[in-house]
Formats: sequence, structure tokens, C-alpha cells
Amino acid sequence: MFKAEITVTLRPSILDPQGKAAHHALDELGFEGVRQVRIGKFVEMEIEAATAEEAERVAREAGDKLLANPVMEDFEVVIHELTSA
Amino acid sequence: MFKAEITVTLRPSILDPQGKAAHHALDELGFEGVRQVRIGKFVEMEIEAATAEEAERVAREAGDKLLANPVMEDFEVVIHELTSA
Repeated sequence: MFKAEITVTLRPSILDPQGKAAHHALDELGFEGVRQVRIGKFVEMEIEAATAEEAERVAREAGDKLLANPVMEDFEVVIHELTSA
Repeated sequence: MFKAEITVTLRPSILDPQGKAAHHALDELGFEGVRQVRIGKFVEMEIEAATAEEAERVAREAGDKLLANPVMEDFEVVIHELTSA
């Protein structure tokens, strides 16, 4: 069993109103030094697969077909093996 | 300048309808081997700070005060130094 961590981020050219709102809220709360805030998704999937390579293939296909918007978003995949003991 | 990556995840005991919906959609698309899907947030912050420790303190305070719901969510912080050249 593997765990895939998929981080989905807006492309740099795409405006991020949710991030802007969080940045504004941090300013209002008195935070200093915060220069930019961008908000994306963090998806954890447990995948039954024979190898880490197969789990990564499944996770990347899920990113392409469902989790990320190919026009506006990029994603990265990290695979961890879960101990089955 | 530092970049903080803050991953906000629902606690394991909290139901995740968005993750359930994504899991169901993956099943409908014919994905095999996917056992669980949980969806959280991935926040990237650029922070002007003297040291990585100070940037991490700012990022953790932002997580505590704004980005994560302390009843339902946990968060982790990773700090990267951005080259200013």
C-alpha cells in the first residue's frame, strides 16, 4: 500500500483571490513580512499497487483527469510506502 | 526571503465529503486500487525574515490564527530559503 501526496497549485499567471483574501486578513491581524500568499489543494490518496512506480502512475493520472484543472493548475506527486505490518 | 509551504489537513476523525466525492469520481472513471482520498489545503507564503526560524514562527502563527481550524485541522510547515540574487 502506498500513500500519494498530490499538491495542486495555481499557475503563477493565474490570479488567486483566495490567497489575496488570506494575505489581507494576515495584514489586518498585524502580521509583518508576509509578501505573498497562494492557496492550492493538498490531496492524500491511499493506493493499492504492486510498486511505487505503479502508484505514482495512478496518482498522476488522477491529477490529470480529475484533481487538477489543466488550464489553470499544476500538480506534483510524492509517493510514500505504507508499512503493511 | 523565505518560502513557507503550509499543508493543512483534516484530522483523521473528521469526515471529508470533498475527499469522498473525489474518491467516488475516480471509481466512476475506472480507477482501480484507490482506497482513500482526503483533501486539504496547500498554502505557499513568501515571508521577509532575518532567519528561517523567524519565517517558521510567522508561518506557524498564521496557521494557528488564520489558515487552519484548530478543532478540525492540523498543519505542517516547511521553510525554503529563496535566493535573492
